[in-house]
Amino acid sequence: MPTDASLIVRDKLRQFVAERDWGQFHTPKNLASALTVEAAELLENFQWLPTGKPEELNEQARTAIRHEMADVMNYLIMLADTLDVDLFAACQEKIALNALKYPAPLVKGDARKYTQYKR
Amino acid sequence: MPTDASLIVRDKLRQFVAERDWGQFHTPKNLASALTVEAAELLENFQWLPTGKPEELNEQARTAIRHEMADVMNYLIMLADTLDVDLFAACQEKIALNALKYPAPLVKGDARKYTQYKR
Amino acid sequence: MPTDASLIVRDKLRQFVAERDWGQFHTPKNLASALTVEAAELLENFQWLPTGKPEELNEQARTAIRHEMADVMNYLIMLADTLDVDLFAACQEKIALNALKYPAPLVKGDARKYTQYKR
Amino acid sequence: MPTDASLIVRDKLRQFVAERDWGQFHTPKNLASALTVEAAELLENFQWLPTGKPEELNEQARTAIRHEMADVMNYLIMLADTLDVDLFAACQEKIALNALKYPAPLVKGDARKYTQYKR
Repeated sequence: MPTDASLIVRDKLRQFVAERDWGQFHTPKNLASALTVEAAELLENFQWLPTGKPEELNEQARTAIRHEMADVMNYLIMLADTLDVDLFAACQEKIALNALKYPAPLVKGDARKYTQYKR
Repeated sequence: MPTDASLIVRDKLRQFVAERDWGQFHTPKNLASALTVEAAELLENFQWLPTGKPEELNEQARTAIRHEMADVMNYLIMLADTLDVDLFAACQEKIALNALKYPAPLVKGDARKYTQYKR
Repeated sequence: MPTDASLIVRDKLRQFVAERDWGQFHTPKNLASALTVEAAELLENFQWLPTGKPEELNEQARTAIRHEMADVMNYLIMLADTLDVDLFAACQEKIALNALKYPAPLVKGDARKYTQYKR
Repeated sequence: MPTDASLIVRDKLRQFVAERDWGQFHTPKNLASALTVEAAELLENFQWLPTGKPEELNEQARTAIRHEMADVMNYLIMLADTLDVDLFAACQEKIALNALKYPAPLVKGDARKYTQYKR
């Protein structure tokens, strides 16, 4: 993989953690917990919206959402770094698996089938 | 930003969703819910481990973890695409904010301070 | 507090765990992780629904939801047992705190105020 | 079921919600989201602890944990009220199902078996 934006972020995170000597707390389990907590903080911004479509979000909500997305992403990059996972290769691997699991002709535009099949 | 690995994944996800006509279900709120569910499925792999250090993970667990990380990442990319967020710029913005919030000399290696400060 | 339904459940859970010698895995942290995973599994049943109102739930969904609610409740009871928390006293304590935090005249029926105030 | 502590809490919650006219936001989906967010806030108190055993929790942590447990419980009671679920009957139903799924002689004290079987 070419040097890309995620590697720049990974290196900044390595430096951030090293400067604070926080690596000792960053077991994979603890990173996965922290990631889940951040995901829930992201969700919190949507929890009382009637439908959650983009037009229900004002600028303040969009900024909060962007920051929480960054928190999730940063923990994901740290976890991938700890476990030596190539995130984008994993994404493509999973998309290929999902394509087999949910054949387009079978599930196309069908909310009922969509919700029955757990992705 | 240069063409990078995340854009390749974004394009594959756009195609995957279009072929299944699933865009209608992908409000930001629903994507944030799905992302949180996947984060919890990631966490599930660690939930009964004594410490959650890497040496407690066998190959089967590592594969499951890689797949769940990919699920989180894929929803994050779809959410970023829907809300027009530049994920890696957001990551760097948040790291800079956190650097101000947690000055290294103040929080270095101190678990008590570390847990008191909510990141 | 009088003998009530939650104590019957607590005693059944104690027996279930003892028969399997699973208490060794039930640190408060692990129980909190498991509880979060079950909460997300509960949420999964709603994640692609347009609004999530009761009429969008069929019988199959309602059964799955009831079972996931039970999983959350069971972990909550086990965590309360481990930490010696009186759940219902805690509920009333928190309702009283929330009543101070969200005075009815200030927040009544106002979705904007409702979402700004984090509960 | 006899009048018990959970019914007192349910009635207090009904009153709290009615006084604020918040029932309009309390679809089952939104309550399930809010419950998951509170579960994650509970988990947050444990996320950087080495093992998460009770002795790692100071008084401040225990109070925070008790309040988050109450938040989860309160949303669970509101969701049960909305969907007309008898929580404690559901708990007992699920314990009976789990007893069939995880026969004591097969899974006793075995962490490997314990983690393989998803509860």
